Order: sequence, then structure tokens, then C-alpha cells
Amino acid sequence: MTNDALTRLLEDIRDGKVTVEHGADRLRDLPYMDLGHTKFDLHRPLRNGFPEVIYGEGKTPEQVGEIFTRMGDHTNILATRVSAEMAEHVLRVCPDAEHNAAGRTLTLTRTPVEYRDGEIAIVTAGTSDLPVAEEALDTCRMLGSHASIVCDVGVAGIHRLLERVEQLRKARVIIVIAGMEGALASVVGGLVSQPIIAVPTSVGYGASFSGLSALLGMLTSCASGVSVVNIDNGFGAACAACKINNLGS
Amino acid sequence: MTNDALTRLLEDIRDGKVTVEHGADRLRDLPYMDLGHTKFDLHRPLRNGFPEVIYGEGKTPEQVGEIFTRMGDHTNILATRVSAEMAEHVLRVCPDAEHNAAGRTLTLTRTPVEYRDGEIAIVTAGTSDLPVAEEALDTCRMLGSHASIVCDVGVAGIHRLLERVEQLRKARVIIVIAGMEGALASVVGGLVSQPIIAVPTSVGYGASFSGLSALLGMLTSCASGVSVVNIDNGFGAACAACKINNLGS
Amino acid sequence: MTNDALTRLLEDIRDGKVTVEHGADRLRDLPYMDLGHTKFDLHRPLRNGFPEVIYGEGKTPEQVGEIFTRMGDHTNILATRVSAEMAEHVLRVCPDAEHNAAGRTLTLTRTPVEYRDGEIAIVTAGTSDLPVAEEALDTCRMLGSHASIVCDVGVAGIHRLLERVEQLRKARVIIVIAGMEGALASVVGGLVSQPIIAVPTSVGYGASFSGLSALLGMLTSCASGVSVVNIDNGFGAACAACKINNLGS
Amino acid sequence: MTNDALTRLLEDIRDGKVTVEHGADRLRDLPYMDLGHTKFDLHRPLRNGFPEVIYGEGKTPEQVGEIFTRMGDHTNILATRVSAEMAEHVLRVCPDAEHNAAGRTLTLTRTPVEYRDGEIAIVTAGTSDLPVAEEALDTCRMLGSHASIVCDVGVAGIHRLLERVEQLRKARVIIVIAGMEGALASVVGGLVSQPIIAVPTSVGYGASFSGLSALLGMLTSCASGVSVVNIDNGFGAACAACKINNLGS
Amino acid sequence: MTNDALTRLLEDIRDGKVTVEHGADRLRDLPYMDLGHTKFDLHRPLRNGFPEVIYGEGKTPEQVGEIFTRMGDHTNILATRVSAEMAEHVLRVCPDAEHNAAGRTLTLTRTPVEYRDGEIAIVTAGTSDLPVAEEALDTCRMLGSHASIVCDVGVAGIHRLLERVEQLRKARVIIVIAGMEGALASVVGGLVSQPIIAVPTSVGYGASFSGLSALLGMLTSCASGVSVVNIDNGFGAACAACKINNLGS
Amino acid sequence: MTNDALTRLLEDIRDGKVTVEHGADRLRDLPYMDLGHTKFDLHRPLRNGFPEVIYGEGKTPEQVGEIFTRMGDHTNILATRVSAEMAEHVLRVCPDAEHNAAGRTLTLTRTPVEYRDGEIAIVTAGTSDLPVAEEALDTCRMLGSHASIVCDVGVAGIHRLLERVEQLRKARVIIVIAGMEGALASVVGGLVSQPIIAVPTSVGYGASFSGLSALLGMLTSCASGVSVVNIDNGFGAACAACKINNLGS
Amino acid sequence: MTNDALTRLLEDIRDGKVTVEHGADRLRDLPYMDLGHTKFDLHRPLRNGFPEVIYGEGKTPEQVGEIFTRMGDHTNILATRVSAEMAEHVLRVCPDAEHNAAGRTLTLTRTPVEYRDGEIAIVTAGTSDLPVAEEALDTCRMLGSHASIVCDVGVAGIHRLLERVEQLRKARVIIVIAGMEGALASVVGGLVSQPIIAVPTSVGYGASFSGLSALLGMLTSCASGVSVVNIDNGFGAACAACKINNLGS
Amino acid sequence: MTNDALTRLLEDIRDGKVTVEHGADRLRDLPYMDLGHTKFDLHRPLRNGFPEVIYGEGKTPEQVGEIFTRMGDHTNILATRVSAEMAEHVLRVCPDAEHNAAGRTLTLTRTPVEYRDGEIAIVTAGTSDLPVAEEALDTCRMLGSHASIVCDVGVAGIHRLLERVEQLRKARVIIVIAGMEGALASVVGGLVSQPIIAVPTSVGYGASFSGLSALLGMLTSCASGVSVVNIDNGFGAACAACKINNLGS
Repeated sequence: MTNDALTRLLEDIRDGKVTVEHGADRLRDLPYMDLGHTKFDLHRPLRNGFPEVIYGEGKTPEQVGEIFTRMGDHTNILATRVSAEMAEHVLRVCPDAEHNAAGRTLTLTRTPVEYRDGEIAIVTAGTSDLPVAEEALDTCRMLGSHASIVCDVGVAGIHRLLERVEQLRKARVIIVIAGMEGALASVVGGLVSQPIIAVPTSVGYGASFSGLSALLGMLTSCASGVSVVNIDNGFGAACAACKINNLGS
Repeated sequence: MTNDALTRLLEDIRDGKVTVEHGADRLRDLPYMDLGHTKFDLHRPLRNGFPEVIYGEGKTPEQVGEIFTRMGDHTNILATRVSAEMAEHVLRVCPDAEHNAAGRTLTLTRTPVEYRDGEIAIVTAGTSDLPVAEEALDTCRMLGSHASIVCDVGVAGIHRLLERVEQLRKARVIIVIAGMEGALASVVGGLVSQPIIAVPTSVGYGASFSGLSALLGMLTSCASGVSVVNIDNGFGAACAACKINNLGS
Repeated sequence: MTNDALTRLLEDIRDGKVTVEHGADRLRDLPYMDLGHTKFDLHRPLRNGFPEVIYGEGKTPEQVGEIFTRMGDHTNILATRVSAEMAEHVLRVCPDAEHNAAGRTLTLTRTPVEYRDGEIAIVTAGTSDLPVAEEALDTCRMLGSHASIVCDVGVAGIHRLLERVEQLRKARVIIVIAGMEGALASVVGGLVSQPIIAVPTSVGYGASFSGLSALLGMLTSCASGVSVVNIDNGFGAACAACKINNLGS
Repeated sequence: MTNDALTRLLEDIRDGKVTVEHGADRLRDLPYMDLGHTKFDLHRPLRNGFPEVIYGEGKTPEQVGEIFTRMGDHTNILATRVSAEMAEHVLRVCPDAEHNAAGRTLTLTRTPVEYRDGEIAIVTAGTSDLPVAEEALDTCRMLGSHASIVCDVGVAGIHRLLERVEQLRKARVIIVIAGMEGALASVVGGLVSQPIIAVPTSVGYGASFSGLSALLGMLTSCASGVSVVNIDNGFGAACAACKINNLGS
Repeated sequence: MTNDALTRLLEDIRDGKVTVEHGADRLRDLPYMDLGHTKFDLHRPLRNGFPEVIYGEGKTPEQVGEIFTRMGDHTNILATRVSAEMAEHVLRVCPDAEHNAAGRTLTLTRTPVEYRDGEIAIVTAGTSDLPVAEEALDTCRMLGSHASIVCDVGVAGIHRLLERVEQLRKARVIIVIAGMEGALASVVGGLVSQPIIAVPTSVGYGASFSGLSALLGMLTSCASGVSVVNIDNGFGAACAACKINNLGS
Repeated sequence: MTNDALTRLLEDIRDGKVTVEHGADRLRDLPYMDLGHTKFDLHRPLRNGFPEVIYGEGKTPEQVGEIFTRMGDHTNILATRVSAEMAEHVLRVCPDAEHNAAGRTLTLTRTPVEYRDGEIAIVTAGTSDLPVAEEALDTCRMLGSHASIVCDVGVAGIHRLLERVEQLRKARVIIVIAGMEGALASVVGGLVSQPIIAVPTSVGYGASFSGLSALLGMLTSCASGVSVVNIDNGFGAACAACKINNLGS
Repeated sequence: MTNDALTRLLEDIRDGKVTVEHGADRLRDLPYMDLGHTKFDLHRPLRNGFPEVIYGEGKTPEQVGEIFTRMGDHTNILATRVSAEMAEHVLRVCPDAEHNAAGRTLTLTRTPVEYRDGEIAIVTAGTSDLPVAEEALDTCRMLGSHASIVCDVGVAGIHRLLERVEQLRKARVIIVIAGMEGALASVVGGLVSQPIIAVPTSVGYGASFSGLSALLGMLTSCASGVSVVNIDNGFGAACAACKINNLGS
Repeated sequence: MTNDALTRLLEDIRDGKVTVEHGADRLRDLPYMDLGHTKFDLHRPLRNGFPEVIYGEGKTPEQVGEIFTRMGDHTNILATRVSAEMAEHVLRVCPDAEHNAAGRTLTLTRTPVEYRDGEIAIVTAGTSDLPVAEEALDTCRMLGSHASIVCDVGVAGIHRLLERVEQLRKARVIIVIAGMEGALASVVGGLVSQPIIAVPTSVGYGASFSGLSALLGMLTSCASGVSVVNIDNGFGAACAACKINNLGS
């Protein structure tokens, strides 16, 4: 479906030629539009509840810059895995974008995000896990969920975590981010009753095998109700958490 | 905490010596009781919303039978990974238990389960994935969520799946179960907007490496909002799905 | 066999001292000639139907340049995995060569390629897979098969792919290129009846393990008729596809 | 789509209410029918050119027997990975079926298979690879391709293979089956110009790692035009080979 | 060195021809004696402080029985990984031996073990880890260290563990035994200051990969002072713990 | 607990308002204080007997410098995995720190370390293992244990090791550091009776797989009483060794 | 080449029609003969210096029995990996064969083996490695090399090995067989100057990963001149050792 | 043993105070001397027949330079894995050294090498394997064996190899060097009867997994008499080959 077709459909809805219900049905099944070198799912906000998302790794600063300038009139944008050079270029061509260096994200908020009730708690084992946590935080923010980070509560100092349990119990969904042995997911899972999304990180060395150790640890967690996303995938964990948070509203 | 202590606490609550709110607080932090060779978290229903759960593998029929007879007066029970011999023995000593041979589960329902609104859809790629699906189904049932299985809609015949999309969109949470390449999670993830819990199965041979292929495929899924549990872990997926479903009620 | 011997054989054929049939028989079993630091199978066009192929990785720009200048009078050349520096050098010493930066290839077309009937469709899951697709495209072109790329039709947006199915059904062979979970091969395999060559790519991170995830996914594909080549091996996939395409002419 | 719907469509075609072209279009996109515990793609012969195929592993003899008795009136059947017990049961309930113990297959030929031109050569490295070769042979036979086995020509005795090269060059497609180091695919690939489908087998011990060694060896083959299927997957290799052979007819 | 030579040396020491100090020096460097199909380090008690140890796996009941009958006059014996059949045979030929079915050990105590001060705490995550714990317990007992098991205190119910912390702090060395994600080692390591020997177990399924998950988790533990032995190696952990305990006496 | 709370507690102890015994009890269970971007366990010296430890990898020179300047008044500091740039910066802002380039450590000794009796021997297979050995050496020094390095006594020249056995027997604990096949741990374990902590290193190439080979070799060591820490983890080995050494004092 | 052709060639040599030198040349390049279900390289003794060798695993007792009865008139035979049932059957049909239960071999000696000078020493780390050592011993014997086993000299008791060094130095080639960490190869390699063939065995558990640990350890051995064969491959090690021993005669 | 002690021993032998036989015995068991930061086995030429060998990786140019200047008066030297910078520095401080850039070696020949009879053939699959071959060549040269390289005879062009078989049969030992699938070792092993040392190389990409594919392929080779060294270990293969070649002289 071309961009024109989409426009016509929306005009038809506006003009009453197509009922909203019917229009929503059609939109839900519409694929994408082709804006040049990349295809975008303009209707994705309807289908998945997401703004446009750009995975920065493997793209040139120019490519990402062009997406921001061309798409930025239609939709909010979240770019992840953004290098310093990429951020610099995008901010030059699209000064309204915001850069979170710690989380390696760029965001553009054309339409104010409508926040739902409920909060997502993002828990990290150590300070080295913060980039993944920040990526998750920005993703939650762009997808309309309140979120906050509880940092540096790894299991080797269990007291730090126990002090924060009450805070965690107030969240609707919990994202647990940990590298090395990834034990934090199991411990949190035994202390709270909320759904938990676990994110293994590549933090560690030697037998960490770039996050494999934490990944296996989280998958074999003895705590029930823990599910896992890819290594370092703060974005994916936030997507899953927001979809869950949306249910409760 | 001993069983007696638990009893006293509950009596105190009954007698008004402890407010319900305070009692709930204490119970949430109470550990377990020791009934002999195994320790049970009697307060787990409060903390996690779960009945007592027994993982059958590595236990003898006699051990499981004893748990059913001793615990069966206090609580509902769900036993998973139950062998045929184990089931036969337990049904003899605890005739009220029910055996699901396909799902390798034994259940005992002392207190009628209270069902919440919302349904969980359990989708499988092939008929060989059914044991895992049945385990998930029984787990949902015991945890108070309606669930149903959509079977044999693997991606090699994408039409089968597309026919069922409307049905899937009515569920609040979707569990996707697939072996071999595990691609079903990605495809379903691109078609619906609900939270998805993916379960890789050990179905396959050769380069399936006992489920590793499906596991990696689901973890690296290009669809957002998919989180993953351990290979063949239908129970864990259902736990996660029910916790999510509970949020929406 | 030396280059001279080859020359004499061809002269003998020309002069009628050796029949064409006999000459072809001898040529088919002749090995190679030694042009200095590298040996070339001059008769390879007869045996395999291929032009001279150079794998650029691990060679110096000078070595590749020398091959172009010395071999370029006898035969067409396809060089793959060509770095920017290598391309620059070769274009300087052999200005007739063409550089495809996206596909990291250099080609030299001394003799116009004779194209066969039938077309090869090259399908990619995402834009990051394009370098592999371009390498496959140039290889097809040099081996005498028409080919075209269908880009960015990954399974997380299945509609994009379904829209292109009719186009795919017109091809004689399909090359499917995908990283991450590699599910595209299974889905395409369920939609069309042509032979499919699947190419896993190293696109992804974490549990992608540099393409291992996609590789295992494609090998265990539930779709029949899918065969697989090495990670990122667009060249090899095109070789296989062209050999297949040649059969139908 | 139910079985009835299929019947009606075919009757409509017969009665001229639906043109053949239109009917073929509809059939191509029709999904499957549900005969009880398993769903079958009745139109699969049209879409993929295949008879009904049953993967025996993980099914009970009774389940497979029921498929043979219920489906056997409509279509030819090929069952793979059939155990001795399963074969015995099926032959009792469906005496027209044929059992190939070496290849672990059961076949039922209701409609005589129409053979295409061209032959597929199935080459094995050792006698231990024969079960996989026989599975491939029966699959070719049921899919309408002539095929024959060239056995025990492993690379450690290269003379055996060289003696058979002329025979291999007469085939249109070659399936190479080898365990241990899987080198046969590379050597055959260097001797002939046909498309080659390589099947690693789990033959070997120790560092063979159940076929991993042969799988990696075939994927990294230095011969171009070799593509690979899953370990021990004689059926899949034959499917790919037959699809290729079909192109040439 | 033969058995005779050992005897003569000991006689010389007894008769004053060799001083005790000199004799000890020589003994420390003496190798072994050859009693037939197996060689024994008779001086091992001096060098390593250990009784004779037999690893039962891969030996026949008869072989183990012969060792008990022939060695049992000279030394205490500890046999591990003893099958039921093996135990039955040994008890028949050597009725003084004791069988611990849970720990799969056989012990023979000719000389009363002299216990040192200090206790070793053996902590397990779940009841399935008990066989490894029992093996460690019997090993400690035979090597002269008091030990006791703290069972079923896995991290998913952190309260159970916290209740036992005071008890753990009284031990001189702690052995932590856990399967699945092995997180217990990290949590205990953060709560106590004693040396910790961690034993991963093969308890679990799927991504546990027969103990690999727990092994990696323990090796990458964020708690300092944790060292690790082989999967299921209760014996080795006890050896290490006893050597440590010996230092403190 | 905030830094203030800690101060108040210590003042109360000083002023006699809290007994030492009670104060120690409270401190043991106190968690940490939050000095800005990083949280520190100020009471860790009490609980674990350790100074403050900083893992340099993944931190900026400025972050580490700030820790040294702010924490350096309260406690001794050990920083590991310190790059040359990081060391240069820290020495500028905290001139009292000492840099060990070979061991990649920075140390700050505000309070003189009190050394216990007993020595730790650090044995390395080759000179390439020295950075790990130096890290262990500095860690021992900061934790109050005498230690010395026995270098370059790999098993391929067993005589070198045998010459040093008497020296090793005088140590209370032995740390064995080796890459490649890691055999040194087994050989030392057979020669001495002390507890042994083995450290696999990433020294080697090819089948060393970045230390995996040495890691597996040490875990499966046929010598009893050997326990293992993560690859290249000289710090962790020293922690374990010092905890053990502390027992004997 | 058929059996007849071979016979004729040998008769021609006998009758002087073909010189021995020419005959040997032809034989060296002759492939094999086909005696039914298996092909044999009758000239292999000439080319490789080997008797006929049968790998028993995966063959039926009947198949092996037939080879012994049909081939046993022409040549000596060595069968490896022979099960008890297979041995029983072969001894019944070919009573001249000899069974070595420990080494799982069957041998038939029609022509007395001519022994060369020089001896091969076969060294094992433990008694569990004996089956592999016995397989190597019988292979050496059938290939014409004297050999003997030095058993149970693992590195954890280095004195046992040092006592035997003089004996090892008298051998021309040394085969070192070890499981677990496989360190014996490195230690022997540092003590002697002969060529060493190392055989990792699958002896061990847990992190031995079925011999992977020993395999990696031997490949990364710090001793020079060590080369390695497949896990448990006593036969292959003996082949290599005999080829080496042959050089010296 | 210090350098002085060695000198004295040699003087004693010279002066007749120690017989040659006795002196050789002592020397064989003497360990090493300590020249500063590295220890050298001065007697290694006697024990192993090797010159001093330096593994350059992980050493600084200065360290290697010092070894050349200090050791270079006593012995021949072979340095492997030498970087360009290292070579430049060493040649400056020790102008008599020779640099082989292709093989990354530095050699110093103080005493003319005495060559033994017999030649070692070094066979490579492709030109990318040449660095490993050159390292092997220089090692052979320094150890006293004639050697030559047969290059670029990979199995995908089997004719190239067959042309060289006669040449290979003249060697006493054959080193086969190949990356990717490593099939060359099997094919050569089937064509010749000499001992074969196989060297897998890290040449390749994707499923080559840095040489793992070739390593596994060579270990599971169906040709007997092939033994394997570490990935890219041309030095080790040459050591093994020279030890074998020495036997035949």
C-alpha cells in the first residue's frame, strides 16, 4: 500500500465515507509505505501501539538523519544503539531530537505521549548495566509507560535489594537487568508477584561469554513468571513490559 | 516459620488481634513450613497467587504421592513432568487427583479455582508441541486463567495461522510454542499487539540441538514484545502469562 | 598442465588435429595453469560454467590488482569481499572494472554475459542484509542469470511479504537472506513451490551469535525444499541458484 | 477450509461453474482440512507438488495407522522415520503400504507417480550413511524423480569416487550424503557442475558431535554451488533436489 | 616403590634406623604400590590427608569388591558413584562397609576418624541436589571434618535462606550446591565472609544443558571468594573444604 | 542506610550508647551508602574483611578518579583492570595511589595493612600469565596476606616445577595460574596437600578458545582439592585464598 | 576393479608377464573390489600397510560375521568397537578369530604378522582409559609394531610417571591416552623427545563434556611435538604410530 | 640449575672428570637457567633436539630483542608470531637475524643446522594458508629437516592434488594445512601411506568459527594415520614432523 492509499483512506474516514470501525479494520491489516531506502509501517501505532523505531547499529548517520527529517513530521521517533557521531549529525539536521548518551538513544516527540496508569520498575545489578537500563527507560517513556530505575542492587549485597522490595511491589511490571551470572532475576522473582522481564547483559568477562552465562541463568531461573529477552535488549524488554502495562489500564 | 506459627497468625487474624492488612503484610514475608522431606511455602498463594506446584522429574512416585496426601487437605496441587508410573501411584493414594497424560500433569482441586476475566491463547507450531501446550493449559487452569489451544499453525503453512488471527486478537496474552526453528513467535508477534510468551521446544533433530535452535530463534526474534522461557517450559510460560492476565482484571 | 599446454590443445582443436568432442573431454579433466603467485582454472568456465572468481578477504590490493590486469584479457572476473581501498587500487590499474560498494564486489566484463531464461528472486528480511543480497545479485549477473532483489520483507510484518508472493512465484529459484532468527526462509518456503537457497546473515547481536541463530533456524526449517549455505555467503547462494537456473533453460 | 469446501470447489470446477484457472488460484491459497487429530494440506500437491508426508518420530503407530487408512483413499503417502513397530502396525491396517526397513519409510501409492525426465544421483561416503540415502531415494520416487544410489565412495579412497564421476555427470542434481568430516561434498563439488545438495549425517563419534562436524564442513565447503540441509535429513534433500529437477522438465 | 619397600621403610622408622622426620620426607615423595589391577597410593594419607578413594563409575561390582576386601585391612575406604548393584555386592563381600543410597557412597571405617575442630556447612538449593550434598557429607566425614546439610534454601524463596544465615556464619567453610541458574552461590557469598566452594549440579532441563548453566553462573558470580568445582562433584568440593578446614585447626 | 546513619552509629559506639557487640551486629547487616553515581559498602571491611574494590573495566578515568578522591579518606582502595590512561589520571588527582602496570592495578593504602601469618604462593605456567598473577599478588597484599609469585614452571618442563615443590609446601594456600591446557593445576595438586585455587587464563590461541580449554581442564582436574575461578580472575582467586588464609591465623 | 582383475594382475606378476615394479605401480592406484554389501580395498595392504579393518559400531553381528568368513581367506582382519553379541557370533562362524573383550576387538591372523624393530609405548592416565589402550595395542600388533601399555600414571601422582620415564624413553613412538583434563600428554611431552600421539578419552563427567575437555587440553598442549586424534580413537592413534614406527626400520 | 652449573658440568666432561655417558644422563634431567625475565632450557637441544624457540605473541619487541642479543651467542633461535614492529626492532639490535614476513618468523643461525635425510612435504589447500605453511617451513629448517611447500591444491579442484601425488609420496612425513572444511587431510590421507600431521587454519568465515570447522573435520577424518595439532599451529606441526623424520635417519 502506498502512502497515497493511506492518505485516501484517512480522508475517507474523515469525510464519513468509511466508518471509523471499518477504517480501523482496514488499517490494522495494511502493511507499510515506502519512503525511499526504507519502508515504514505508518499504521504501526495502531497495530502495535508503537512510535517509529530505528535500530541505529549498521546504519550511517546520514541514513538515520534522513529518517528523522522525513518521518519526523508524521510521528514520534525512537532511535536506539545510536553512536556519538550519529547523534551529533541527527541533532544538527533535526534540532528537536533529544539525545540520551548513557542509553545511546535519540528521541523525537512530535505528539505529546499519553501516559497510562501503572509504573514499570527497571532494576539493575550493577552500574555497568546502566546503558541497557537507560535504553529501556527511554523506550517505556516513548511508549507511554511511566518507569524508573532501581540501580546497583546485585545479589552479592542482598540487603540493598531487600531495602527496595516495597518500592518494587508498587510497580505493575518489573524489568530485571543483570550481567555475569544474572542471578538477580531469580531473587527478585522470589520476592514479588508481578510479571518480570529479564534482560541478560554482556557485562562480565571470561566465562560470561558475552552474556551467555547471564542468559542461561535467567532462562533456567528457579523463580516462576520470569521471561527473558535477548542479551542487552533493553528496548525489547521495555516493549514487552509496556504491552503488559497497557493491559491493566 | 513453623506450621504452628502460621496457624497462630491466622487465628489471630480471625480473632481480630491482628488486622487483615497487617496480617497480609506479615504473611507476605513469611517463609515456609517444613512438612518432612520437603518444605512448602504455604503462604505462596498469597505472595505469588499460585497453588502448590510439584516438579515431578527426579522425584519418586512415593514422594509425590506423600505430598498429595499430606498437602492435599490444605491447598490445590499441580504436579508437572509426571510419568505414567507416578500418575498411577498418585491416583491410587489420592483418587481425587486428575491425570492429563498428554500434558504429563496431575492436578488436585480442593478449592474451586476462581477464574479471572480474559483468556490466554496457547498457539503451537505442530502436533509434537502438544505436550508442552497441555502443560501450559493445565497450569493456566489451576492459576485461574481461561486458556485454549490453537494447534498446528506452523509458519510453513502461513495460511493456517492467518485464518486464526482474529481469534488470537481476542486473547489478552498469547503463549507461542514451537520447536525446530521457532519462527512462529516472530510471525505471531508481527500480527498481534498482545504480550507474547514464547516457549521453544525440543521437537526436532540434528541442528535443532534439543531446542537450542528454537531458543536462539525466539530470543533474536525481529518482533518486539516477545519474551522467552526455558525449552519445553510450558509451566513457566503459563505462570508468566497468568501474572500478566491478572493485571488486567 | 601449463598455460602453454592449454594453448596447444586449443590450437590443435582449431587446426582439426583434435576433434571438438575429444578436446572437450580433455579440457574437462585438465586442472589449472600457474600464472605466478596464484593458480587459475582456465577451463573452469567449461567445467563449472563460472568466470574467474576472487575472494578478496585476506588478499592485498596489489595482489587483486595484478590478477585483474593479467587475467582480465582472458576472462570475465568477479571479485567479492572487496574493501574500499582494494577497489580504489583495482580501478586505477584496471579502469574497465566496475565497483559495487554496497555489495563489496568488483566485476570486469570482457565478454558480454549471455543470459539464460528464468529469473532468480533475492529476498531479504531487512535492510541490514543488503550487502549480502548485492553480492548475490552481482554473482547472478556475472554467471548469466537475471536476478532482482525484494527487500525488507521480514516476517515480523508478514503483510509486506504476502504482497510480494505473486512476484516471487514468477522466479525460477529464490534466494532468501535473513539474519537474527532467520524465519523468513520457512515462511517463504511455505508460500511458494520453487527451490529455495537460504543465506543466514551475521546481522543481529547477543544470542544471534554472529549468525549462528539464523543458520540453525534455516537448517531446521519446517518448510521442505530449503537448503542452506554459509553465513553471509551471498556468492555461494548465487552459484547454487544459477546452477539450478541453468537446468531449466 | 473444510474437506467439504474442497470437494465443492472441485465439483464446481468439474461442472464448469469455476474455470480451471480460477480454481487453481483459489486452491493455491486454500489452507488445509482438519481430519481429527491432525490437519492436512489437501491442496499441497498443487502448491508444492508433494504427496502427503508424515514424520513418524514422536507419533504412535496407531496415529500413523489412522492417517494411512483415512488419507489413503485421497492421496499417495510417504512416511519417514518409521520404527519397526510402527511399520508392522501400519501394514496390518493398510496392507497396500510398502515398508523400506533400510530407509525407515512407509509408502502408499494410490495414484501411479508420473516421473519426470532427469535423474537424481544420491552419493554416500560410507555404508553407515545408507539409511539416510534410502530415505532420500524413496522420497525422490514418491515425488516423481528417478534416482539411484552411488554408495561407499568416501574421500579416503578417492579412486572409488573418480571411477564414478562419469556416472555422476549424467545426473541433473546430486545429493551428497556423508558423516564424520563430510569432505565428500567438497570433492564432488569440484568434479561436477550440477547443483549439489549436501546432507551431513550423524555417523561418527567423539569430535563428530552427532553430525556437527560434517555439518560445519559442508557449510564451509570450498566448492561453490553446494547447499546444505539438516543433519540426517535425507527427506529434505530429496525435496530440494526434486524441486530443482522439476525445473528442467 | 613396592609394598615391600614401604614396609621396610616403616620398619626402619620403628627400629630407629631412620628418624621420623627423615622418614616422613621420604614417604611424602614415595609413589604407590601395585596390588594387581589397580595401583594405590598407600602413603596418600600422609601426603594428602585422605583415605583410599574409589570412583565407582566405570568399575564392575567385582573390581570394587576386591578393592574393599584387599585394601580394607590397611586403610579406611570411601567409594563414590556407587550403583545399587555395586553396593549390594560389596556389602556381601565386606559386611563392615556402610552404604548411603542417597549419596551413592560406600564407606569402610577401619580406624576411627579423628575429627578436627570446625564445621563445614553444605547448603543446597533444592531437594534434587541432595545426592551431591550427601556425597559431600560422607566425604567430609571420612576426611575428619564435621559437616551438616542445610537443604532447600534456593534463591527463589530468599526468606528461607535469610533465616539460616546465622547458622551458616558458624561454619568455617561453606559448600553451596545448586543446579539450574546456580544463583545460590552468589547470594550466600554476599551474606557470609567464609570461604565458599560452589558445586554446580546437573539438575534442570533445556537451557540448563546438563549443568553448564549453573557452572557458568557460579564462575561469573559477582560475590568474591567463591571458587567452583566440576558439575555434580560433591566429593571434590568436600576435599577442598576439608583441606581448608584443616588449616584452621 | 545513608552515610550519615553510619556516622551516627559509629559515634554512638564511640560514645558508649551502643555496645561494641551490638554495633557489630548492626553493621554486619547494614547495606551500603550512596556517594553519588556509585554505592559503596562502607561496612564491607567488617562483613567481608575487604577494602573497597573497584573493577576498572567499563569505567571512565574520571569516575575512578572521583572514587579515589572521595573514598580515599575513609578506606584503603584496590582498583583492578586499570588501563594506562586511567592510571595516569588517578595518579594526578590522587598522588598517594600506587600503580602496578604489570598487574593493571591501582592501590591506595591509607591505613597500614595488618598482615596475618601464613603465605600464599602464586604459581604461573608461563610469563604470559604474569598480569593475572600480579593482580592476585596486589589483591593478597591489600587483603592482609603475604604472597609471592613462582613464575614460569609449566608442565612441559616438569623439572622446573619439581625444584620448587619444597617452596610451595611452605605456603598455606596455593594459587595456580595457567592458560592453554591448564594442566599445571593437576600436577601441583598431586604434589602438595594445601588448598589450591586454580585460575585459567586466556593465554593461548585456536583451540584455547579464549581460556575455555584451560577452564575445562582445571574443572575436570584429576587432583582433589582444586577449585576454580573465572578466566583471568586473579582478583577472585586472591579473595578466596585470603579468606582461607584468614582461617588459619 | 573387480576381484577377478586383481587376481589376473597378480597371476601376471607371478608368471613374469608383468614386472614386480610395474605391478606394484598398478596396484597402488587400483581402487577396490565389491564383495557384496561392502567394498574392500584389497590392495590396501600395499598402499597403506594395513590389514582389512572393520569398524563394528553400526554393523550387525551377521554383517561382521560374513566379512570374517568371506575375507578371512585372503587377509588378516582387525575389527574394532565389537560388542559382546557381535564377538559371540563371529567366534561361532569363524572360530580362528580372537576376541579381546577389554579392547572390544576381534582379530584374525591368517598370515603371521611380520614385526618391525622399535616399540610403541601406550601410556594411560587411569584404569578407565584401558579400553582405548587395548584397542591401540591390538591395532599395533596387527600392523606389525611391538607395543606395551604403561597404565595408571596420571599427572595427579606425578611420581608414578617419573618412575617410568626411562622405560618410555626406550620406545620409538609414544601414545598418550587420557580423559578428564588430558594433562598427561603435556607432561610426557616435556619429559621425552619422541613423537607423541595423544588420544583424549570420554572418561569423566560434567565439564568433561564427553571428552571435549581432554581434546582441547591436548590440542593446546604447551609441549611441542604432540599431535592429537579423535576422542576414544585408540585405533587411529595406533595407525599413526605404526606409520611413524615403519619409517625407522 | 644456574648457567654456571651447566658450564661446570660441560667443563668436567671436557676435562674427563665426567664421562660423556654420565654427563648426558645428568644433562637430560637438568632443568633450566634463569637469564632474567625469562627462563631458558639450555639443555633443551639435548633433550628435545630443538633450538631455543620464542613465541612472539604477547611479548614486546624489546623483550624479544633482548632474548636475541643475550641468547644469540649460545644457540640458534627461532621466533614465531613475530609482528612487523617486532621484526624491525630485532633486526636493528641483532642484524644477523633473518625475517620471513610471510611466515611471521625471525631466525638466527649461529651454528649451521645439520640436515638429516628425508624430506617433509607441506601441503596447503589455498593461498590464504601460506602464513601457517611458511611458519612450518622455517621451523623444519631450524630443526634440521628439509621441507618444501606444495601450495593451493584444495579438494575443490582435485586434479591439482592428483598431479602432485607422486611428489608427495617421496616425502617421509606430510604436513597438511587447510582451513574452511579441512577436507584436504582426508583426501591426502587416502592417497599416500606416510604419517600425516594435519593443521586446521582459521581461514574462512561464518560457520568456519575461526578454524573450529576445519579442526573437527580433521579430527573426524575417515583416513587413518592422520593426527592433528592446534588451529594455525604450523610450528607445532613441524616439531611433530621433525621428530618423526629424525626416527628414520
